[in-house]
Parts: sequence; C-alpha cells; structure tokens
Amino acid sequence: MSTETYTVSGMTCGHCVSSVTEEVTELAGVTDVQVDLASGQLVVTADQPLGTDAVRTAVEEAGYTLAG
Amino acid sequence: MSTETYTVSGMTCGHCVSSVTEEVTELAGVTDVQVDLASGQLVVTADQPLGTDAVRTAVEEAGYTLAG
Repeated sequence: MSTETYTVSGMTCGHCVSSVTEEVTELAGVTDVQVDLASGQLVVTADQPLGTDAVRTAVEEAGYTLAG
Repeated sequence: MSTETYTVSGMTCGHCVSSVTEEVTELAGVTDVQVDLASGQLVVTADQPLGTDAVRTAVEEAGYTLAG
C-alpha cells in the first residue's frame, strides 16, 4: 500500500475537484483519492507507488497542473 | 423569438459555464444559450420570453445565482 501527497494548481470549484478525482482514480492500482479544493492537496492511495509522472499526467488530463 | 440577457454570479471555471448552459438549455422553448465566464453574462434565446423566474430557477439548479 502506498500513499502519496501532491499539490494541484488551478482548481477553482467543486467541478474541478471532481475532474481531478476522476482522472486520478482511473490510474491502475488506485484505491482512494482525496482532493481538497482550498489547499489543492491531492492524496492518492494505491496498491503500489504510482510515481509523480503518472499522477502529473492524470492531473494534466483533467486540465490542471501539479505544483512543485 | 425572444432574447434575454442576465448576469450569473459564482461561476469560476469552464465547468461552471457548462453546468449553467446545460440547465438553461433544458428550459422549454430555448433555442440558444451563450454564457461568458469572465463577465457572467448569460444570453438566452427562446421561442417566447422565458421570464426571470424560470431562468433564475435553472441557474440556481446549476448551483449559481442571478445577479440583480
């Protein structure tokens, strides 16, 4: 089990949170995704570590970017 | 044919624009809906005048409010 925390830039409303959640949830092995609009915090739980590149790709597919 | 212009408050992103467009489009007789995110302007074209109350209800169902 792996838990990784990222910060997402550009989310402005609940729809944005839904879009990010949906894209990241589709990554293989993901068992839980939590996104906080105010802080931009994205917490991903998965069977194995996903790596920043995979998460970044999913976030960018949703239309947002990873900070840092 | 009737064209009415309103101002919508609370939209922050393209998803918000989509939600408002979708709800207003569902009103009976509506033939065209244009929403501008930056200004909040909503222009509704319909077979007959819709009236503010009907448009307000649709906008509120989308989760936003009519200004003024």
